[in-house]
Amino acid sequence: MATIPVVVSVVILACLFGSESKYMVYNTSQTIVPGKLNVHLVPHTHDDVGWLKTVDQYYVGSNNSIQGACVQNILDSLVPALLADKNRKFIYVEQAFFQRWWRDQSEAIQIVVKQLVKSGQLELINGGMCMHDEAAPHYIDMIDQTTLGHRFIKNEFGVTPRIGWQIDPFGHSAVQAYLLGAEVGFDSLFFGRIDYQDRAKRKNEKSLEVVWHGSRSLGSTAQIFSVAFPENYEPPPGGFYFEVNDDSPIVQDDINLFDYNVQERVNDFVAAALSQANITRTNHIMWTMGTDFKYQYAHTWFREMDKFIHYVNMDGRVNALYSTPSIYTDAKYESNEFWPIKSDDFFPYADRIHAYWTGYFTSRPALKRYVRMMSGYYLAARQLEFFRGRNSSGPNTDLLADALAIAQHHDAVTGTEKQHVANDYAKRLSMGYDEAEAVVASSIACLVESPPSVGCGNPSSTFQQAIIETPNWFCLYYYAIIMCPLLNISYCPASETDLSNGKSLIVVVYNPLGWKREDIIRIPVAKEDVTVHDYEGREIESQLLPLFDAHVGIRNYHAAAYLGVTPRDAPIYWLAFQASAPPLGFSTYIISGSKDSGKQIRYRNTKNSVQKSVDVSYSFYSGYNGTKKDPQASGAYIFRPNGTYLIKPEVQVPVTVVRGPLIDEVHQQINSWLYQITRLYNGKEHVEVEHVVGPIPFEDGIGKEVVAKITTAMQTDKTFYTDSNGRDFIKRIRDYRADWNLQVNEPVAGNYYPINLGMYIHDDENELSVLVDRAVGGSSISDGQIELMLHRRLLNDDSRGVAEALNETVCSKEKCIGLTIQGKLYFRIDPLGEGAKWRRSVGQEIYSPFLLAFSEQDGDNWLTSRVTTFSGIDTSYSLPENVAMITLQQLDDGKVLLRLAHLYEVGEDKDLSVMTHVELKKLFPSKKISKVMEMSLSANQERSEMEKKRLVWKVEGASGSESKVTRGGPIDPAELVVELSPMEIRTLLIEFAITHHKLFDA
Amino acid sequence: MATIPVVVSVVILACLFGSESKYMVYNTSQTIVPGKLNVHLVPHTHDDVGWLKTVDQYYVGSNNSIQGACVQNILDSLVPALLADKNRKFIYVEQAFFQRWWRDQSEAIQIVVKQLVKSGQLELINGGMCMHDEAAPHYIDMIDQTTLGHRFIKNEFGVTPRIGWQIDPFGHSAVQAYLLGAEVGFDSLFFGRIDYQDRAKRKNEKSLEVVWHGSRSLGSTAQIFSVAFPENYEPPPGGFYFEVNDDSPIVQDDINLFDYNVQERVNDFVAAALSQANITRTNHIMWTMGTDFKYQYAHTWFREMDKFIHYVNMDGRVNALYSTPSIYTDAKYESNEFWPIKSDDFFPYADRIHAYWTGYFTSRPALKRYVRMMSGYYLAARQLEFFRGRNSSGPNTDLLADALAIAQHHDAVTGTEKQHVANDYAKRLSMGYDEAEAVVASSIACLVESPPSVGCGNPSSTFQQAIIETPNWFCLYYYAIIMCPLLNISYCPASETDLSNGKSLIVVVYNPLGWKREDIIRIPVAKEDVTVHDYEGREIESQLLPLFDAHVGIRNYHAAAYLGVTPRDAPIYWLAFQASAPPLGFSTYIISGSKDSGKQIRYRNTKNSVQKSVDVSYSFYSGYNGTKKDPQASGAYIFRPNGTYLIKPEVQVPVTVVRGPLIDEVHQQINSWLYQITRLYNGKEHVEVEHVVGPIPFEDGIGKEVVAKITTAMQTDKTFYTDSNGRDFIKRIRDYRADWNLQVNEPVAGNYYPINLGMYIHDDENELSVLVDRAVGGSSISDGQIELMLHRRLLNDDSRGVAEALNETVCSKEKCIGLTIQGKLYFRIDPLGEGAKWRRSVGQEIYSPFLLAFSEQDGDNWLTSRVTTFSGIDTSYSLPENVAMITLQQLDDGKVLLRLAHLYEVGEDKDLSVMTHVELKKLFPSKKISKVMEMSLSANQERSEMEKKRLVWKVEGASGSESKVTRGGPIDPAELVVELSPMEIRTLLIEFAITHHKLFDA
Repeated sequence: MATIPVVVSVVILACLFGSESKYMVYNTSQTIVPGKLNVHLVPHTHDDVGWLKTVDQYYVGSNNSIQGACVQNILDSLVPALLADKNRKFIYVEQAFFQRWWRDQSEAIQIVVKQLVKSGQLELINGGMCMHDEAAPHYIDMIDQTTLGHRFIKNEFGVTPRIGWQIDPFGHSAVQAYLLGAEVGFDSLFFGRIDYQDRAKRKNEKSLEVVWHGSRSLGSTAQIFSVAFPENYEPPPGGFYFEVNDDSPIVQDDINLFDYNVQERVNDFVAAALSQANITRTNHIMWTMGTDFKYQYAHTWFREMDKFIHYVNMDGRVNALYSTPSIYTDAKYESNEFWPIKSDDFFPYADRIHAYWTGYFTSRPALKRYVRMMSGYYLAARQLEFFRGRNSSGPNTDLLADALAIAQHHDAVTGTEKQHVANDYAKRLSMGYDEAEAVVASSIACLVESPPSVGCGNPSSTFQQAIIETPNWFCLYYYAIIMCPLLNISYCPASETDLSNGKSLIVVVYNPLGWKREDIIRIPVAKEDVTVHDYEGREIESQLLPLFDAHVGIRNYHAAAYLGVTPRDAPIYWLAFQASAPPLGFSTYIISGSKDSGKQIRYRNTKNSVQKSVDVSYSFYSGYNGTKKDPQASGAYIFRPNGTYLIKPEVQVPVTVVRGPLIDEVHQQINSWLYQITRLYNGKEHVEVEHVVGPIPFEDGIGKEVVAKITTAMQTDKTFYTDSNGRDFIKRIRDYRADWNLQVNEPVAGNYYPINLGMYIHDDENELSVLVDRAVGGSSISDGQIELMLHRRLLNDDSRGVAEALNETVCSKEKCIGLTIQGKLYFRIDPLGEGAKWRRSVGQEIYSPFLLAFSEQDGDNWLTSRVTTFSGIDTSYSLPENVAMITLQQLDDGKVLLRLAHLYEVGEDKDLSVMTHVELKKLFPSKKISKVMEMSLSANQERSEMEKKRLVWKVEGASGSESKVTRGGPIDPAELVVELSPMEIRTLLIEFAITHHKLFDA
Repeated sequence: MATIPVVVSVVILACLFGSESKYMVYNTSQTIVPGKLNVHLVPHTHDDVGWLKTVDQYYVGSNNSIQGACVQNILDSLVPALLADKNRKFIYVEQAFFQRWWRDQSEAIQIVVKQLVKSGQLELINGGMCMHDEAAPHYIDMIDQTTLGHRFIKNEFGVTPRIGWQIDPFGHSAVQAYLLGAEVGFDSLFFGRIDYQDRAKRKNEKSLEVVWHGSRSLGSTAQIFSVAFPENYEPPPGGFYFEVNDDSPIVQDDINLFDYNVQERVNDFVAAALSQANITRTNHIMWTMGTDFKYQYAHTWFREMDKFIHYVNMDGRVNALYSTPSIYTDAKYESNEFWPIKSDDFFPYADRIHAYWTGYFTSRPALKRYVRMMSGYYLAARQLEFFRGRNSSGPNTDLLADALAIAQHHDAVTGTEKQHVANDYAKRLSMGYDEAEAVVASSIACLVESPPSVGCGNPSSTFQQAIIETPNWFCLYYYAIIMCPLLNISYCPASETDLSNGKSLIVVVYNPLGWKREDIIRIPVAKEDVTVHDYEGREIESQLLPLFDAHVGIRNYHAAAYLGVTPRDAPIYWLAFQASAPPLGFSTYIISGSKDSGKQIRYRNTKNSVQKSVDVSYSFYSGYNGTKKDPQASGAYIFRPNGTYLIKPEVQVPVTVVRGPLIDEVHQQINSWLYQITRLYNGKEHVEVEHVVGPIPFEDGIGKEVVAKITTAMQTDKTFYTDSNGRDFIKRIRDYRADWNLQVNEPVAGNYYPINLGMYIHDDENELSVLVDRAVGGSSISDGQIELMLHRRLLNDDSRGVAEALNETVCSKEKCIGLTIQGKLYFRIDPLGEGAKWRRSVGQEIYSPFLLAFSEQDGDNWLTSRVTTFSGIDTSYSLPENVAMITLQQLDDGKVLLRLAHLYEVGEDKDLSVMTHVELKKLFPSKKISKVMEMSLSANQERSEMEKKRLVWKVEGASGSESKVTRGGPIDPAELVVELSPMEIRTLLIEFAITHHKLFDA
């Protein structure tokens, strides 16, 4: 056992391991030489945070029979390799791995690594927990996972990453460029995958490197220098791979041995450099020296790169140097070159003909939904955690934060991972949820118990004590506050309780939004004789809806599959009632047994009772299976249909209509594996369509990709609008790309785009908007029509590495059946120009549904002894209609991270696309704000510092064409009012004055 | 560029890299625990000195598409891994690699590594340049290559390897055990490959570990504790491979991550240990933790072994420790166990049914011959180097030593390497020869020029100056002394010179043997009118023999293939004459043109002119091609015949007989690809049969393995005798093994043995002896018959890794034809008990033929102005008939290494199997011996020190059955007489008194 000295002589180490050879000492000190072609060698590894193996398997290097990969080796071997020569450099990207490694390192190694980071030898770039996908994640998740990584880096190393490094995601979003790029403070953004037609044109025009304006609203104020690689993120062609056992020719420069080859290898290097220079502006080119999970023994790469730098520079035709994307970016900047402007985004992505990576927009729809649910829950849970007071060591929201962060990886929420890895992400989310649920329960318990003037969050309170002292705190139900995470499968033991013996069910309805809100809520109940009272004791209108077979089947199968329980008798009814809750607050409802004979359920069978101007239909595409000659199959990544088939009942099945005071439902069994419920809510003007899809049959040997088509008679001129990561809307034109003359070879797949918030189309009079409950793929293949892909079950792998067919099943008692998914679409028709308000506000409601907590009242009088309604903000205040609070989070140091987001783009709504403002004092009514610091989006540096460092790039063409972008002004420390211009997000770090008798005051 | 500090703090390093983990510090300090099952983990790598890649390719890690292997990585990564934890241990074996690495290391690394060797963390075992084969090498080569490695280790590290580690060779020889084991001073010998039937029995009887008496003559005085592994030299079954990307389950002990598996892995470990304990005596078992070219990133192995040691010892059921074969040997020794005795050897080796590794005894017969020729040449060249005085920096014999050493590797001379690797060995031998030839030429030039009383070797002499100052010394012909290395293909420009204009050809005939010797020599000449005079001016008898088409074809094709030259007109004749030369000396002969009409060549055609009591015939075995069901084909390793076919002319071809005063030759074209010449020499009583075999046809889809059968009518009762590495003879009985009840499944291949010197059979009256000119496989498949496999050409790989069919070709001008080999067998019949003398002395003559050097005399009178005869030893002295000088070599420090070998076994010859003695003073007549130190066989320690340390093992059964072994006594420093008992080899380090005016005095 070794003891660890705190003081370490790094110099000695460097000297010892730097002396590679007695006779061959390589000069690797070269920096940029102005007159020459500079080849920037950027040593890197690309470490997927889960793909073929789970994140932990990749980290420790287990399960190598699937893929030889061990991130621990990479980081372990990197340290001595960098110490051996101070000219060597490396970038590391994925913080999920880096943090796993970091927490295992001795203090001695940590000191050394801090010095390496400080000196720039080791540069942490991108810096999120993972290299998130850019199609399937919600922008709030992207911000959160980036913040998690960036703040760790800031705290441990005192540095802020300068570079966006999205080298592998399968297409690139506008939100990535402007929000997770420019607004984070990155100086440049690098990526590897753009459409093969686009790439060819850009090579030809030397326009792989651009200045990207990702946001119409923020324009050049949020632009970023962006680099698309000539091919991929690997070394250039010509044999420059140097992993252990790689077969590229090493530089054999020992004249005592056979096969001396220095001149041949220098020639290879120069040839590859000149070839790349030919498609690149300026005399700087970058070589990405590494690829997936390489540098397991870092020495093998550096040894060869040392030699290349030494001998190539001796040769003198080109200049080779160790570099990083930062050094490269600075070199590009200092070249004073003009760069083309790029707008919008890089979707969809095809890597060759018939290979559109648009299938993954929908792949694993259940996982995508789970991620989205957890995303909303995490937002709410952090609010409640703040109200109660954060507990760093006890249950908190960190585990969910971590699970959600990892789930944004470009092989996670994308659905392009192996099944066992998808299971791992789900397991992590589930564990994270469990801990967050404990936070939520304890916070609600605390808020219910304490008068607002006393508040929660005093760590010496008995609540806190209970948490700390309980070993298995996951299982604690604080004050019997119970959650029902499986409400989605109609499973809620708390609400299914027997209310016949005078017991009542307490429902605490929490609203995470910044506005007061009313919504119909639905809970399963076991009996029909129930009444609902509000917290003021008034009975309110409620409605019972029958639980149909489709839902009962889902409930029983999945409760058995996931909980291992066979539920008691299924509840017979859904009980629906309208609840309302204040901003960031809750209201309490009481469900009691009643002696009444129950509400009358009115329903009748009819064939056509709901008349609509909008037709909803379902089809499936048959997934191409691939042939020897043309092997590209439809799969987890790629959507390649070879036929389309309308889904219609073989026999005419009657439609069931349920009507009531709150909800009308139309139930249709479209076929044996597709069930649809159309819902209209009293007081809501949109249609909610719930679909239950699956198990998709495949016994006919045909993979199927199921779409919903929402059809109108509108003349939409090939044009539709899709959101970018749930934020900006981008105009799409069928069979068209703004950047090049599209050769159409996949008329369906090539028109698919990722949808996170929704889509809309319009004609001269109206617009049809559709909102979604998760990431899906969508398009408008025919004018007047919006189509959304709901589910996919395929029989073939599509040859992009995952090596599994996308054929999800759910197993219970050793029997596996195809995955059934349940989901909702929401649509509405508005007059032209008036749809944004619905899309934005209902979009927020879908993302942040009411959070329900249950308790039982047995003899006690809850209404008189407990807090029955609460708002986290000033009761007189709510956020402006065009602003959402996307983060409210207490940090470990007691400060609060607050993000406010303007929800509208410039010109999107005639009333709401305007500068607006939020009064901070009203948001924290019982606290005294002592300091507000505006931060970069990832909260790792002051905004003012970030702006000071921003590089101003020269762009081709007049930049005067852009109309002036306004942004909210500085925050007056006395007024504490935050201005927000359209699409602006402002990230604030808030400190409160500490009152004498409380540590944390909510 | 890093500068190198001389003083390095190893402690700091160890602490820095030893602290694997903040939370997991492993206790790896465990040593042997007496009461428990001790699992000795022996970390090792097995690095073939050439096999699928060349030695240099393996070292630098090039050509990885053939095999991922880089020895540089292993040694580079080993140093920090050992520094990280002082309990970690490693053994390194192959000095060819270690030396390549060592000479590239900085002084700082060298200091660290010396400390690691000193502390025992890094143990250098086996210690030869390679892990030599035990079937195909000559014992002198085995000694030389071991000495080369051992003396390097001694010089650099001051240590002597304790362990024989022959883990991969394909069967194990008696000479390895007693000579290269016990006589080298090893305490034990480890190996992996023994017959599968033998292994099964030994497991059952716990007799894998034995005390091996390899020599009948030296008995227990040369015994060695020997360990055959239970399976191979890899980790035990159960998943204990930890190379980068290996798929054994790692020990996942981080409770923060998923898949924690400590208990499962501990259970795996304990189960594997108990299983091995079940077949092993004592409570010590060894796990060979590594295999071919592993530890490229040593950290990956040690990290897991650290954990196993830590957790297994916490578990406590067995005791796990870092160990080495030395520690294991000591533990076995201290156990006081009794061990079975093993006699003879472990040949042949089959790893399963129908898989006898007896093909490689003959594979690549041309390479085997080249190695043997170079072996003899190296012995002679060192003698001449000594006479001239060694030049460390100029041309010397080191390169040949190195090439020969590497060629002894068990995938080199064995013929089991890929073709490009075989070419590499040949290239190295050729380069080594070229440099040695320069030494030989300069030495002969020097000896010819200087009167013996003056001597060569003064480094200030003009000869030396010429060597040092000439940049391209390879090409220098000192005093026009020219060699003819291609005499074997009848190509010798020097002797083919035009002698018509009064020029004469000088032939200096050097005899490397310690006895005066007479032999017929043959050189090609261009014309028939030549006479031969001896150095006293007397014309001596000579004979011209025609050069037949078979030889002319070989000459022209191979001169073009290897030299790129088309020879001038072929010589028409071989000129033969009888030469004699003194011990370690030369005589000069002069070939002149003559006006005579030339010698009459008498020859006639006949069908049957030579009557013999011995019949020589040729057959081929058809090599089995393998089927899907029974895939084991005959190949480079494995001999698996599926038929035997007599080779006879399709039409009766006339026999050509050439008669003369010195030689009678009978030429027979047996078929289109097999030519035979039977030779009888005047004054010699044996028959020499030369065969020219090839290109073996394979167009019929049948691989062929060609054998010569020498048939008598003797009743030999299944019994025959084969040599062990050219030294001891071992009795073999067909279809029988002394150690177990043989299940015969390959009645031919399973009776094959390696032959290096020869074979004999006998009946009650006579013995038939056959000697060979290279390593071959041989057997006696029928009573009265000896068969020797001469050549093999096969169409299939035999699935032992080389992945090439053994199908050798020789290419010239882009045309490749199957390899033709040329070789000789020598046989003779003696009365029973009298054959040894011929076998031993002619064996020496075959190994050490006359070395011929040529010059031209043009007008000068060579005989009067030059030294025309010379003996390196006292002219009145020659070695006893039963002693050979197998090493005479001047070392870099000026000392001389002398090895004297008794040539007879106990009881082998009634006169010569006796104690004999050598007078050292007579061997160095012009020098004064100041000190003689007797050394271990590999000359790395004093013999007396070695004997003092020798472990005395307890053996099963009475050891009193052995008759007393005598050995030569101590050498009296005044008398300087060396006694040698049968089979004894004595290794002496001799120092000479320095005379005032000469640095080196010969």
